[in-house]
Amino acid sequence: MNNSFGEQFRVTTFGESHGPALGAIVDGVPAGLELDEAYIQKALDRRKPGQSVFTTPRKEADAVEILSGVFEGRTTGTPVALLIRNQDQRSRDYGDLAEVFRPGHADYGFFRKYGIRDYRGGGRSSGRETAARVAAGAIAAKYLQEKYGIVIRAWTEAVAGISGEKTDFDFIEKNALRAADPDRYPAMEEAVRNAIAELDSVGGIVSCVIEGVPAGLGEPVFDKLDALLAHAMLSLGAVKGIEFGDGFAAAGLRGSVNNDKMSPEGFLSNHAGGILGGISTGAPITFRIAVKPTPSIRQEQQTVDQENNPRTVTVQGRHDPCICPRIVPVVEAMASLVLADLTLRCH
Amino acid sequence: MNNSFGEQFRVTTFGESHGPALGAIVDGVPAGLELDEAYIQKALDRRKPGQSVFTTPRKEADAVEILSGVFEGRTTGTPVALLIRNQDQRSRDYGDLAEVFRPGHADYGFFRKYGIRDYRGGGRSSGRETAARVAAGAIAAKYLQEKYGIVIRAWTEAVAGISGEKTDFDFIEKNALRAADPDRYPAMEEAVRNAIAELDSVGGIVSCVIEGVPAGLGEPVFDKLDALLAHAMLSLGAVKGIEFGDGFAAAGLRGSVNNDKMSPEGFLSNHAGGILGGISTGAPITFRIAVKPTPSIRQEQQTVDQENNPRTVTVQGRHDPCICPRIVPVVEAMASLVLADLTLRCH
Amino acid sequence: MNNSFGEQFRVTTFGESHGPALGAIVDGVPAGLELDEAYIQKALDRRKPGQSVFTTPRKEADAVEILSGVFEGRTTGTPVALLIRNQDQRSRDYGDLAEVFRPGHADYGFFRKYGIRDYRGGGRSSGRETAARVAAGAIAAKYLQEKYGIVIRAWTEAVAGISGEKTDFDFIEKNALRAADPDRYPAMEEAVRNAIAELDSVGGIVSCVIEGVPAGLGEPVFDKLDALLAHAMLSLGAVKGIEFGDGFAAAGLRGSVNNDKMSPEGFLSNHAGGILGGISTGAPITFRIAVKPTPSIRQEQQTVDQENNPRTVTVQGRHDPCICPRIVPVVEAMASLVLADLTLRCH
Amino acid sequence: MNNSFGEQFRVTTFGESHGPALGAIVDGVPAGLELDEAYIQKALDRRKPGQSVFTTPRKEADAVEILSGVFEGRTTGTPVALLIRNQDQRSRDYGDLAEVFRPGHADYGFFRKYGIRDYRGGGRSSGRETAARVAAGAIAAKYLQEKYGIVIRAWTEAVAGISGEKTDFDFIEKNALRAADPDRYPAMEEAVRNAIAELDSVGGIVSCVIEGVPAGLGEPVFDKLDALLAHAMLSLGAVKGIEFGDGFAAAGLRGSVNNDKMSPEGFLSNHAGGILGGISTGAPITFRIAVKPTPSIRQEQQTVDQENNPRTVTVQGRHDPCICPRIVPVVEAMASLVLADLTLRCH
Repeated sequence: MNNSFGEQFRVTTFGESHGPALGAIVDGVPAGLELDEAYIQKALDRRKPGQSVFTTPRKEADAVEILSGVFEGRTTGTPVALLIRNQDQRSRDYGDLAEVFRPGHADYGFFRKYGIRDYRGGGRSSGRETAARVAAGAIAAKYLQEKYGIVIRAWTEAVAGISGEKTDFDFIEKNALRAADPDRYPAMEEAVRNAIAELDSVGGIVSCVIEGVPAGLGEPVFDKLDALLAHAMLSLGAVKGIEFGDGFAAAGLRGSVNNDKMSPEGFLSNHAGGILGGISTGAPITFRIAVKPTPSIRQEQQTVDQENNPRTVTVQGRHDPCICPRIVPVVEAMASLVLADLTLRCH
Repeated sequence: MNNSFGEQFRVTTFGESHGPALGAIVDGVPAGLELDEAYIQKALDRRKPGQSVFTTPRKEADAVEILSGVFEGRTTGTPVALLIRNQDQRSRDYGDLAEVFRPGHADYGFFRKYGIRDYRGGGRSSGRETAARVAAGAIAAKYLQEKYGIVIRAWTEAVAGISGEKTDFDFIEKNALRAADPDRYPAMEEAVRNAIAELDSVGGIVSCVIEGVPAGLGEPVFDKLDALLAHAMLSLGAVKGIEFGDGFAAAGLRGSVNNDKMSPEGFLSNHAGGILGGISTGAPITFRIAVKPTPSIRQEQQTVDQENNPRTVTVQGRHDPCICPRIVPVVEAMASLVLADLTLRCH
Repeated sequence: MNNSFGEQFRVTTFGESHGPALGAIVDGVPAGLELDEAYIQKALDRRKPGQSVFTTPRKEADAVEILSGVFEGRTTGTPVALLIRNQDQRSRDYGDLAEVFRPGHADYGFFRKYGIRDYRGGGRSSGRETAARVAAGAIAAKYLQEKYGIVIRAWTEAVAGISGEKTDFDFIEKNALRAADPDRYPAMEEAVRNAIAELDSVGGIVSCVIEGVPAGLGEPVFDKLDALLAHAMLSLGAVKGIEFGDGFAAAGLRGSVNNDKMSPEGFLSNHAGGILGGISTGAPITFRIAVKPTPSIRQEQQTVDQENNPRTVTVQGRHDPCICPRIVPVVEAMASLVLADLTLRCH
Repeated sequence: MNNSFGEQFRVTTFGESHGPALGAIVDGVPAGLELDEAYIQKALDRRKPGQSVFTTPRKEADAVEILSGVFEGRTTGTPVALLIRNQDQRSRDYGDLAEVFRPGHADYGFFRKYGIRDYRGGGRSSGRETAARVAAGAIAAKYLQEKYGIVIRAWTEAVAGISGEKTDFDFIEKNALRAADPDRYPAMEEAVRNAIAELDSVGGIVSCVIEGVPAGLGEPVFDKLDALLAHAMLSLGAVKGIEFGDGFAAAGLRGSVNNDKMSPEGFLSNHAGGILGGISTGAPITFRIAVKPTPSIRQEQQTVDQENNPRTVTVQGRHDPCICPRIVPVVEAMASLVLADLTLRCH
């Protein structure tokens, strides 16, 4: 296992979907930062379930408690421990889930790796694990905003193949999918409703733009800024790809077009997405991630059990038909952790 | 700086494009592995310049010397140090390059980060740095092949927007672009020749498939197998994106289609690219990376100098018009390093 | 800050003396280990305050809760989070302690390092922090005992300059100082009583012997077994020195005497303390640590305040007059963490 | 293996006693530091063999070459690679040494750990490995001296049980043992000559004092300054113990005596050796290490071979009868690496 992320600003997380609690220890938080539970709670509330018709109705307050590292409202330089109790722990009957592997889930890999697994709601592989990341990332985001004026914003760019064409940041928190294009939103929402009606789920694309990053962040040669961001984003179970700036489209461009020319006023374009040679250039950092459709669907699917016998499984309960809206705050949290760590590694 | 990669099988590299030498220390190589310079040299020869009309004619033998860790033809468990001398060190006149920033290059970021830079051929940010990765990766690949039967193969899937449609592994080493589709190759080659004629460069896409990986590799939650592979690939300066399995296409699929159903004979499809929840499933691991067009072009480009005065720059000398063919062995090397490390971290 | 210890069996701790809680996340615990709270509680009870007239009467149940990583009585391979609530949090009047630096304590260094400090009972620098180490170490000890039959035992060898001459393991838990020599114990006890009567404290020496360690543990060159044990022991605030085998006495010996000769039955002596070249030899590992006298004494001492004005301070409340008996289980815990980590790094 | 030391100023070393070369990669060296080979060579010359009648006459120039990281006389922020070729590589007849284990050496542990060993002069376990540490440490020392005015000085305090009583820094480089007490030196020298005459060796104690360290260095709780220094010193094969400040003597003191009182002018004593709670206080840092007698002696010693048959061995060739004088520069180098790393981890 490796449940730690970062070198000088390092978060270590724990917790299973239906265990007693989730949480994190955030080590390396600079001393003197104003911090309280109310601030972190706001970040957690953006991720918690039951926010709309498009998220699982599971009831979880996701109330966070700060256990250490804060004295008289300020961080002291000692590790900040964060605790989130699970409320939904009723030992329901998991029936088949205790024996079979759900297609598209981590069940099989965990079983092959450890020879044992906590099958309750996916255990450690549940998306619920990201609550701890969001709580820790909120501390990083506050530090970055106050010290550098860095602002990190993510949104749902596409759902079910329907892409937004403009980015209205004010619209993001006003719709159930965290989409940024009011005009394309109705089509996106309809696509999700259709999927729900057909006991299915949809994938999408989440975009992120980071402004205010000073030039010089990123540690060549292996811990390039884009390498660490890619590591962070691919550490999310539902993410299947990432691209920076023009990304895969750049593969079809010529150098004369893709190179961002410079003037005394700065870069004349941003095909690179704010990163050259793994180091931030001061231009906005832009990346997009591919989010796969929710693997939990109410259709009967062919699978096997732990003895490799042929079985079928139908995942009961209501799950998010599209992960995008809830992964948005997680993407912002992970990007915050990467940048906070690099600012403290930078010399 | 962070010039180390991996935890239990860890490579640390050094060297500038026009400094005395490049090299690596490979720590954690299991004892008893047969190893000699001839084997590593073969891997280096696949990456070295001057192999075809499509690679820079720079003369470098890239001859490797093993300085430690091998006794009587076998590794001893002590670190294996590898040395590659640079031959092309003539102190030529770099003219403008000492003062201006080449568009699309790391020059600007390095200067802003360190306040000083080795401008000779890009110094540490030169693609030449990857020679050390290839030498180290060859040791990892040998270990993986002999202990697990793991085979890693990469190839150029697309160039200048022209994609291959089939994968003929035998063809890869028989063409100047390391393309895998003999039918589409002529069109790819023509596209590159046109770019050269117009003093320009092209990008492309490199694919990789890894067979023989046992189920269970990958360390949840942060060091997932795909997270580490993404970290490894994005640590290559020219790479702008990565996707696993169906990748970005999966964002447009429904769960009922994207989920790989299972039978006693194994997975019935491989949309996931051999990784679920960050752990290998035993299915072939597949990923694609976006390679940007070579930033060094012989056209005059607008830029600035270190005092932020407006300047223009024309990069002299002949450079690879397309990086894909030479990045192929580097992709295989980095994938080898990731897997070797995980096999030694796996319990 | 660095609140993590170990590479493959890694513990990360948090918590202040008078904050809400202390705890640890133990990452890398092999799956399938039987574990419950009652087992860990036993280890914690050995360290907790109020066990005898020679330990502070502070009331702390030190009740541990397992928050994750255990399912149906066995570890799952996911991180094991441990929580210990502080009971003694009453916001008493700390008076001078909020401004002055206690001689012999970490107050001054923390203030100079962070510019802010949690002065309540020493905050993070309190010996109370070791409760989290003991809880985590208990898991490591169980793994070592069950998988390798490794047994780690520490005891108070000397107090106030009075040294034990024999080692009766059965006696250790039967006396207030965890001394191992019943004959010398009365003199030790009297020395401590005298110090108490004179509002003073005493130091001592703690010995540790580890049996059952297989040959081959220890990672040359920097993570030698003795280097890691020294790192672990000196990470305890009250420890001022460590020696292995004959230690400082070996500095006065000749090679012909100090070298441990070998026979088919094994080593004929153990001057080396079971470690040669940083690698375990299979012989018992022995080391001794110097424990300074408790810095908290009820005598008036000369010091300064945060504005560097001359002040005096008298530390109120009853503190352990000798740290040795309570550091014994902490030494065993830290040794367990070092060995568990090395067994998982060893290939 | 773990051949890397440090987090932000990290050295990775390689090389065997009779392999082609030794060396190091120093990562994290701040950009802009003036550096050339002549400076590093001076440090190496202090450690190299053949300096006096008391060191092995093995001929090694220990000439260092800088392979990377320096441009126009200054560091660039990229890794500095250092190469030291071995001259003495003649494949002599190692006879018994290829099969038997030398008492007091790492031979047995290496064989049990790796199942294979480079028996030529101890291979990786040879003290010769420390040449790479001295070269790397010289860079750290230069950085510390220029940026903080930190001065690190070590010397031989005792040999064969004969202790120096005063410390004359000017005398250290003027005698074959690097002793600091001119009056006691003759007795020390005689003790060593007697040991040589009797085909034996002697141990000793090396002291170190570090001045100019700012308050606040050291990372609680696990990477305390003394914990890292202990780790560094015990990573030297011949070191069997370390103590800070009063060390083991403090175990016999009372708190009222051992506590260093403070005044506006600073600490009134330095029993603590400049470290409290693992953090530097600004007072001089002092520690002492126990160095065992050289295990290589020309007397016949009882041992076993790789098949565990009883054998005897007499180590041929002339070896240092006392390791102290040559370990002195290594102690300074390791202390430099610890401090340089902490200054870069300090926030």
